[in-house]
Amino acid sequence: MPLLTRITGPRDLDRLSQEQLDQLAGEIRTFLVDAVSKTGGHLGPNLGVVELTIALHRVFDSPKDRVLFDTGHQSYVHKLLTGRQDFGRLRTKGGLSGYPSRAESEHDVIENSHASTVLGWADGLAKANEVRGKDDHVVAVIGDGALTGGMAWEALNNIAAAKDRPLVIVVNDNERSYAPTIGGLANHLATLRTTDGYERFLARGKDLLERTPVVGRPLYETLHGAKKGLKDFIAPQGMFEDLGLKYVGPIDGHDIEALESALARAKRFGGPVIVHCLTEKGRGYKPAEQDEADRFHGIGPIHPDTGLPIKASAASWTSVFGDEMVKLGHDRDDVVAITAAMLQPVGLKKFADAFPDRIYDVGIAEQHAATSAAGLATGGVHPVFAVYATFLNRAFDQVLMDVALHKCGVTFVLDRAGVTGDDGASHNGMWDMSMLQVVPGLRLAAPRDAEQLRAQLREAVEVDDAPTVVRYSKGVVGPAVPAVGKIGGMDVLRKPSVAKPDVLLVSVGALAPMCLEIAGLLDRQGITTTVVDPRWVKPVDEALAPLAEQHRVVVTVEDNSRVGGVGSAIAQALRDAGVDVPLRDFGIPPRFLDHASRKEIMAEIGLTAPDIARQVTGLVAKLDGRFERATATDAVQPARD
Amino acid sequence: MPLLTRITGPRDLDRLSQEQLDQLAGEIRTFLVDAVSKTGGHLGPNLGVVELTIALHRVFDSPKDRVLFDTGHQSYVHKLLTGRQDFGRLRTKGGLSGYPSRAESEHDVIENSHASTVLGWADGLAKANEVRGKDDHVVAVIGDGALTGGMAWEALNNIAAAKDRPLVIVVNDNERSYAPTIGGLANHLATLRTTDGYERFLARGKDLLERTPVVGRPLYETLHGAKKGLKDFIAPQGMFEDLGLKYVGPIDGHDIEALESALARAKRFGGPVIVHCLTEKGRGYKPAEQDEADRFHGIGPIHPDTGLPIKASAASWTSVFGDEMVKLGHDRDDVVAITAAMLQPVGLKKFADAFPDRIYDVGIAEQHAATSAAGLATGGVHPVFAVYATFLNRAFDQVLMDVALHKCGVTFVLDRAGVTGDDGASHNGMWDMSMLQVVPGLRLAAPRDAEQLRAQLREAVEVDDAPTVVRYSKGVVGPAVPAVGKIGGMDVLRKPSVAKPDVLLVSVGALAPMCLEIAGLLDRQGITTTVVDPRWVKPVDEALAPLAEQHRVVVTVEDNSRVGGVGSAIAQALRDAGVDVPLRDFGIPPRFLDHASRKEIMAEIGLTAPDIARQVTGLVAKLDGRFERATATDAVQPARD
Repeated sequence: MPLLTRITGPRDLDRLSQEQLDQLAGEIRTFLVDAVSKTGGHLGPNLGVVELTIALHRVFDSPKDRVLFDTGHQSYVHKLLTGRQDFGRLRTKGGLSGYPSRAESEHDVIENSHASTVLGWADGLAKANEVRGKDDHVVAVIGDGALTGGMAWEALNNIAAAKDRPLVIVVNDNERSYAPTIGGLANHLATLRTTDGYERFLARGKDLLERTPVVGRPLYETLHGAKKGLKDFIAPQGMFEDLGLKYVGPIDGHDIEALESALARAKRFGGPVIVHCLTEKGRGYKPAEQDEADRFHGIGPIHPDTGLPIKASAASWTSVFGDEMVKLGHDRDDVVAITAAMLQPVGLKKFADAFPDRIYDVGIAEQHAATSAAGLATGGVHPVFAVYATFLNRAFDQVLMDVALHKCGVTFVLDRAGVTGDDGASHNGMWDMSMLQVVPGLRLAAPRDAEQLRAQLREAVEVDDAPTVVRYSKGVVGPAVPAVGKIGGMDVLRKPSVAKPDVLLVSVGALAPMCLEIAGLLDRQGITTTVVDPRWVKPVDEALAPLAEQHRVVVTVEDNSRVGGVGSAIAQALRDAGVDVPLRDFGIPPRFLDHASRKEIMAEIGLTAPDIARQVTGLVAKLDGRFERATATDAVQPARD
Repeated sequence: MPLLTRITGPRDLDRLSQEQLDQLAGEIRTFLVDAVSKTGGHLGPNLGVVELTIALHRVFDSPKDRVLFDTGHQSYVHKLLTGRQDFGRLRTKGGLSGYPSRAESEHDVIENSHASTVLGWADGLAKANEVRGKDDHVVAVIGDGALTGGMAWEALNNIAAAKDRPLVIVVNDNERSYAPTIGGLANHLATLRTTDGYERFLARGKDLLERTPVVGRPLYETLHGAKKGLKDFIAPQGMFEDLGLKYVGPIDGHDIEALESALARAKRFGGPVIVHCLTEKGRGYKPAEQDEADRFHGIGPIHPDTGLPIKASAASWTSVFGDEMVKLGHDRDDVVAITAAMLQPVGLKKFADAFPDRIYDVGIAEQHAATSAAGLATGGVHPVFAVYATFLNRAFDQVLMDVALHKCGVTFVLDRAGVTGDDGASHNGMWDMSMLQVVPGLRLAAPRDAEQLRAQLREAVEVDDAPTVVRYSKGVVGPAVPAVGKIGGMDVLRKPSVAKPDVLLVSVGALAPMCLEIAGLLDRQGITTTVVDPRWVKPVDEALAPLAEQHRVVVTVEDNSRVGGVGSAIAQALRDAGVDVPLRDFGIPPRFLDHASRKEIMAEIGLTAPDIARQVTGLVAKLDGRFERATATDAVQPARD
């Protein structure tokens, strides 16, 4: 890597010739395939933006100018060009983040990995420049997929309104919205994109071709075929200009010279301008180019030559859900499924193949997913919206005001709930069980194993007058955790033989094995512990308060923010029942978590069996101390039977 | 009202002649002015849709066909035509809701008053029809303003994609987006609308006119002038058709025959179609037509002839905020303000007049308001986003992931927090103090009176590394409530003279007078009470736990959902400090509240001084009973001083 290793910052690009820049692009591709195949990460998106990122840093002067990336998983090249070339510990504790990180570099701005935000940020930064009389530039890179998100449209409306406020929007159009990646749904899904208008133009056929401006012709020929050429050339120009935005393009996103020329023009324009770049996801890496499914969007460690995964994946929560959905689809013809541009990752591919008329991919549009689900339910079918837990944040208002207020039978399936780890702060699913607590009527299940997931999904779709939620972790599903009894609707996982045990341990979801481990550790200290899994954590089971009264301490353990989570809800239920048994709630502390493995994070925040057992032991010891002083063993929580 | 009184349902319209329909429209206008001037309500919007609503119910067969209204405050005419003509108790307990209500009528569907939802609902209902093989129609009425909301765009993307799924979208374009209603901002704001493209077309002038299709010419002449004619005719057609939607219009929204003809054509089309109707807000009512500010959008009781309010309004929370913002703007030139299409209602008009370069109206786009605020803060200015508390729900993800994760100094000012009452379930600001609890680093102030609002706003904008929130009630600001002392950052409002008082009462915001009343009532029962106002309710003041230990019971009172609110946060803080003093938290129960006056609702949910005093008295009595049994007075919460 003779050139790459000499790049310590963007300005080192200035002295390279176009030939050297092309060589640099090649070095970067080799570096990326080599590095990411070892660590895992977002390979395809970064291979697609090598030339674009080089051109951006040639034309703009970061960090004085702000170079912003939407979603952020395509910022590896940006990292390489801004002094960060140690990818050995990418996405691991202490290593580089898989997203932009202000702690890493002054060249990074947006760390939020939720899509469609970059235009809002850019609008704000451009306004701030205006207020402060600065003539620095702001350039925002956004994928065509992210333009389907509502907040991107809100931002475009605002950006287009200020004709004299400079702002460069680079649309990184990586073709993936056109490719028939999803079987029978391809045509349907392609039209969901912002590029939908293209299809309509295309349908007009020859008529349209004749009306195409002459300048379109060379593009028509140089691009991959009639369809692509027409679609890219004609439609976006119309749409963007209707919104009031100057349009430049389309540009070959792998031609550095052309990119530089277009970006330089856009930079000089003095108002909002769109630069439409055509890129290829996975460019230059055979296994990615040949993978029509997702072009190596995000990968685990792979063999660099074949692109095959190094370790085989075991059954995941996602696949258990996906398989059960297919069975459910056969059993009930009124069940439909919704995804927000993540058909494969949330496990709905099999359902889509089996029931192509009952699957809806709404684009990166969680708000629409929720509200259209309310409409679907009102229209007499039962929608299941499967989404990453963290992305449901986007639809809080719609879950509350459209689904719950209207008592709609909609099932939300939250994947990647809890600490997810290596994707960093904004990918952890640590908000859902707090945010959803306030939604009246909503029922929330946290299955502890595969069997429970299947059962609770079935129970959820039986509810037709309220929203239901089933939330589970990322990755491999753990071993079955059998119940040894039942109290109310709760599964008893461990029942000590004493009449009045010390601790009632309430286990939430996948933490059941850890809770049993805690009980074992407490046992060694002579502390007797009942372990229950409420299964449905909202509403709080009515049997919980009476059960709590039969213990000296209640302990809750959840893989969610401690603030306003299941522990808080149980504490409130106990207060409301007049049960003032001391309670301690364990969960994720109220702060953002740096990227690391799930295990490392759990250790760091004290969500481990030894940590919790130690704290509970201390609490029980303290209570014992009080009893001695009070000379009445029942003083803290008198038995009432 | 000879015709109106004979309309008991939509099908009664079928037998009326066009002449009679015009007469009916006149009767409805008279009825509306008469009825709403007595009760208050949304007058202007309903006067604008009289003919449109008649035509909708002539062409479509509700409730078999679904007639859907966005936001819902323009559904009065719909109510009159569907058997609801008793407007005497509009928006009061037991009377008609000011919004659609499924409890009132099978003709109502969407009750959520948050804007921009109707297209999502319509998409879902149309999909359900398709799945179930039904050929019923779905028609959605949406204002031009609501199209600026991101979720409307998400829905349009989806609707346009299904070329064969019938769905009629009526754009109720009431001209208000063009009128220079907001002084120097007019041009800027007009371009924020979805109709922004019009301006660009217009600017091209003569060139464009020559390229206008011939059919445009008659419209150009018949409509109010060249500007309007051009704008309405050319631009929307382009934009909607680019999205892939069939376009019909523009239609004179006060010509029933023309409306019926257009709607009938749209109904027959067999795919998604936009019907663009031009209406006049306040049509037919002189005081409204002459009111350039908001055309009597929402009013209190008025004199029907003059349109003047019957009772003068006292100083409101909103006006206190608005005045202080102007002072703040003079003191600090780095403070900017943001509104989401509610400049007047949130009190930012004076700021806008004084600092036209530092105000941003982003449209009905709370997500963009929050994310662009993050950009503004990162760019070195301090944005203040003023918004109704309930509407901040839309921006939960952006507050969390853009503002808080990035440690941006953004101040959110939440107006209409707590129980607002007469606008029904979705207007109550009862979620913010729960939803925002989970946001790391966020600081939340609930000022108790005007002086505190001014002071805490000043404190909020001093914070430049975290989001701050200032939340207050709707309506008239109460009397000043002086502090009698200070503990930590908390104001002591009442301090009993005994060494260890019984109750620590934590008062949140505007409930301070009620809390003092509670303390007075408890006093009469011989129960001594300390009352504190934490001022900043998040994070929980560090002085609270030690103070709680000096009392026998902690009671919290807040005008927010009980679930996950300030009471829960304080309870958790006490648990974390190992302070197991019994706590009881009073607030709004976790259910949706029917419309009624604030006072009636507060009584119904038990948020009154006598109710709370009675419950606290019972709790203290119960504790006394325990003490006798336990024979150790310190057993429940040992004094540690």
